[in-house]
Amino acid sequence: MCLATMKDYYARDLVVTRFNRGTRMPYQSPVSDFQFIFDNVVGFSQVAETEKFAEATEDMVTAILAEAGKVADEVMAPVQRNGDLNPAYLENGVVRTSPGFADAFAQIAEGGWLGISADADNSGMGLPTTVATAMNDMMSGACLSLALNPLMTLGQIEALEHHASDALKDLYIPKLISGEWCGTMNLTEAGAGSDVGALAAKAERNGDGTYAISGQKIFITWGDNDFSKNICHLVLARLPDGVPGTKGISLFVVPKFLPDENGEPGQRNSLGVVSLEHKLGLHGSPTAVMEYNDATGWLVGEEHGGMAAMFTMMNNARLGVGVQGVGVAEAAYQQALSYSLDRKQGKTGGDTGMIFDHADVRRMLATMKADVFASRSIALACAVAIDMGNATDDADWKARAALLTPIAKAFGTDIGNEVSQLGIQVHGGMGFIEETGAAQFARDVRVTSIYEGTNGIQSLDLVGRKLMDGGEAAYRIFEEIETGAEAARASNPIMAEAVWQATETLRETTEYLVSVSMAERGSVAVPYLRAFARVLGGHFHLTAAVAEGGNGPRTKLARFYMARMLPEHVSLLSQVRASHDDVMALTPEDLAV
Amino acid sequence: MCLATMKDYYARDLVVTRFNRGTRMPYQSPVSDFQFIFDNVVGFSQVAETEKFAEATEDMVTAILAEAGKVADEVMAPVQRNGDLNPAYLENGVVRTSPGFADAFAQIAEGGWLGISADADNSGMGLPTTVATAMNDMMSGACLSLALNPLMTLGQIEALEHHASDALKDLYIPKLISGEWCGTMNLTEAGAGSDVGALAAKAERNGDGTYAISGQKIFITWGDNDFSKNICHLVLARLPDGVPGTKGISLFVVPKFLPDENGEPGQRNSLGVVSLEHKLGLHGSPTAVMEYNDATGWLVGEEHGGMAAMFTMMNNARLGVGVQGVGVAEAAYQQALSYSLDRKQGKTGGDTGMIFDHADVRRMLATMKADVFASRSIALACAVAIDMGNATDDADWKARAALLTPIAKAFGTDIGNEVSQLGIQVHGGMGFIEETGAAQFARDVRVTSIYEGTNGIQSLDLVGRKLMDGGEAAYRIFEEIETGAEAARASNPIMAEAVWQATETLRETTEYLVSVSMAERGSVAVPYLRAFARVLGGHFHLTAAVAEGGNGPRTKLARFYMARMLPEHVSLLSQVRASHDDVMALTPEDLAV
Repeated sequence: MCLATMKDYYARDLVVTRFNRGTRMPYQSPVSDFQFIFDNVVGFSQVAETEKFAEATEDMVTAILAEAGKVADEVMAPVQRNGDLNPAYLENGVVRTSPGFADAFAQIAEGGWLGISADADNSGMGLPTTVATAMNDMMSGACLSLALNPLMTLGQIEALEHHASDALKDLYIPKLISGEWCGTMNLTEAGAGSDVGALAAKAERNGDGTYAISGQKIFITWGDNDFSKNICHLVLARLPDGVPGTKGISLFVVPKFLPDENGEPGQRNSLGVVSLEHKLGLHGSPTAVMEYNDATGWLVGEEHGGMAAMFTMMNNARLGVGVQGVGVAEAAYQQALSYSLDRKQGKTGGDTGMIFDHADVRRMLATMKADVFASRSIALACAVAIDMGNATDDADWKARAALLTPIAKAFGTDIGNEVSQLGIQVHGGMGFIEETGAAQFARDVRVTSIYEGTNGIQSLDLVGRKLMDGGEAAYRIFEEIETGAEAARASNPIMAEAVWQATETLRETTEYLVSVSMAERGSVAVPYLRAFARVLGGHFHLTAAVAEGGNGPRTKLARFYMARMLPEHVSLLSQVRASHDDVMALTPEDLAV
Repeated sequence: MCLATMKDYYARDLVVTRFNRGTRMPYQSPVSDFQFIFDNVVGFSQVAETEKFAEATEDMVTAILAEAGKVADEVMAPVQRNGDLNPAYLENGVVRTSPGFADAFAQIAEGGWLGISADADNSGMGLPTTVATAMNDMMSGACLSLALNPLMTLGQIEALEHHASDALKDLYIPKLISGEWCGTMNLTEAGAGSDVGALAAKAERNGDGTYAISGQKIFITWGDNDFSKNICHLVLARLPDGVPGTKGISLFVVPKFLPDENGEPGQRNSLGVVSLEHKLGLHGSPTAVMEYNDATGWLVGEEHGGMAAMFTMMNNARLGVGVQGVGVAEAAYQQALSYSLDRKQGKTGGDTGMIFDHADVRRMLATMKADVFASRSIALACAVAIDMGNATDDADWKARAALLTPIAKAFGTDIGNEVSQLGIQVHGGMGFIEETGAAQFARDVRVTSIYEGTNGIQSLDLVGRKLMDGGEAAYRIFEEIETGAEAARASNPIMAEAVWQATETLRETTEYLVSVSMAERGSVAVPYLRAFARVLGGHFHLTAAVAEGGNGPRTKLARFYMARMLPEHVSLLSQVRASHDDVMALTPEDLAV
């Protein structure tokens, strides 16, 4: 076999075939959907009214959403396919990136998007997380493999702002915002994935205030590239006197090139990319195994206080990953809708013959659309809670943000997977053919339900830590939903009743859940989280219908959701009552039969 | 970028990394599971007691299952990865196949497996479809991309046996069984996928009894290869006097090389492979665009009677595709189980630290295992009905086979997708890395829910044609389930009640469904089929538990299924009651908002 390159193999033109194989529709950022959700569904105006975010006026936010959409559509979407066809690769220890990625990144940086959330003091835009979340959603839909790069940098800026010394902040943050340098997160090791506390990377005090970092880290997203002057690695490692587990871990910033006296990249640090992974998707995003050999690093935060610093970053990263799922779902949906209107098949399709007119195809499209809206609303409601918590320091807002985060992450990414799989199905046979791009969405988004804490771990976080208040934060949300449903009875009685009933069932199940031991919650955490999201989705669809009034598209979609999708909560919540023993009784021997 | 070949890219060794990346467990055919299901769940003994299948004695079947398992494990499984790493490709008009495929195919042919179902008169083994279905399941789990080749040939043999003239039978069948020649099915065209009747391929009478076939066919599985002496294409085309739609279609056998007077491959026929598709999975299975230019063909069956001939083949092919899903699910499950016992993570994992001990991981594994059993039992029950229909010509058995076929196809392949996705999830981050093979299962199996009639079309077949008897065949099954549940009350009261109740709900919903118009059934067909399968799964799990007695692994798994999986039917069946208007009211404009 002598296929010259991956590119030739993938891009092989089928010009000799006669048939229309479907045109790839360019991604279009759903700017008006964000505007509607901001204004009518998640109450963004509360955020804009706080002192902290006083500059996020209506006009400002509208302009920012439109501009972010433009970058996604015009700069990022055009390179999405490149990343898949021309994967990043390692050449003499340097990562070579996919064609067009360097340019696109430069334009993102020029637009100031890397500073969207950073404090104005650090020359950032200081915009609320809600706005940044909308931007992440759009950028992820346009080109997830590239979007991960700025996302890592945004996370690093946030961690440095909260935990680094002024000297480090002054040196790193402006260069990260300008895009000259970019950032990575180094947590995972071969023996420490979900269990970060097991990590083995070592840090030694050099005696001059710096540290020597050694160890191997895996799954490092954008661990290197060929367009940044410097790459700044945030690395978790253990000092000699660090206790075992998470409490003995410290956080360091370890740059690829040591800054010289002018703060410019100087001597090469003793770290490098060992290899890149060959992955199911996200071929444009280099995933590195990194090796550190007495690499020079600087402490971020306190010694042994690394996990606290990482947690700030990880919590917001979880919401960020949630909208990665939503964004890819949006893109997969747009393409499937477009294909369904273009593709003709069969006789039951009415006059047009488009497959859109087949009831089951339309059911799939409506399912996709309804869940994109539900998962996006949940993510943005979570973002509003984060912003309100930051702006007001109010414990209830913080608890709400903490509760919604695992739901936003797990549900958003599950929907990313489900919607992109439905997108393949809508394409029929052409869905299995790579050139339509339908499969790329499914491949790219697959990891989002795994990284940043698997969705199983998100569910455990929800039924564990997030219900440790005895369910109080959850009950406050249920109350809010029921109040909304009561108010909606006049205009939308059937939908209001469905949401109200579902919330009651969820409340009763939550009461049951907080009454049983943590061990017993483990095997029912996933269906519980899903049911919670289903009910929240009902709430937001109802809210949208009420805001729209009449019988417009949002109301019709809400009606579809209530009849076809909300009922899922019944089966899910009945599973929550199932005995833990049913699972744990099954031994390896039983399951090997 | 200068990646030398796909192979280099995919196979790049990560020898420099230090960590155990998980070992790929070799596939092991679940021979004992088949034996158990044959003996205790689907009543295979009825088949063996018929005159037609008198030779399928218990000993014979046991030996055949073991032998088929050996071929799958020892011949096919070792090349499964080759197909992915070294895709089939087109070189000067000839398809070059993946390394090892030619040898493996030769061994399959030598073993006589291509004649498993063929009449003894035609030097076949004449074994029941139930046994062939078990073989397909195992071969699909071992290496689906290779298994498709014999499967196509098996289908061709069947079509020729039923519809071809004696001369054609005598010429083709022995060579197909010996593996010297192999077969393909050519239905799909660019404008005729699910709607076969729209096809444009033309046939002209040559005046000498042969026909001249012209047109382009797409998605032709194993359209060519480099190890068969001849490739025999079954092609649907329309004669000049063929009416539009399916009633004007005729079936032809069109060989790559025209048989000479000795029946050996002679002159090259005017047909060829235009291109191969680049697909999400099944890289080892060449999917061709075929072009016919006045190619010489021979009529199979009657002029304009092509669809009848194809239907024989397609119906059984649907069951065959159903077990492709089951087989891949089995393989994905085996690997995930093995990984979960090997991989250590976290502190809540008890003494061993294996991720198997995490409740949510075990929940996923039990879900996988329980659905492999449910979908396999449904497929084998369908196969038994097909065999009984063929052996007895009894209308009830035939109706039962017809009813179960779309369920076996859609549910088996849905489970293939779901289980392989869960397999990725169990692997955590390594699931996204291609070298574990977890992703290959998901990629390979994806098309099974699309080809041979999308699962949406299977569902429409179920709620349409298969309920045209007013639900009689379905009610007979419900009765059987309830009788079984009544009998199980003594030994397994809780499970028996769950199955009984679920069946009642399914019966009521079926009564409702047969009372509404076909148009109204369209948008609820998919959840209805799924609920039907869930209830059947409950029945077979209960049957297995009763047969096992006590509290063994099958009983424990059944208990898990009843508590965690059977409840899905509640939400699904409530969707079936949803108004068709909810879907059809959504216009393209609504869905574009």
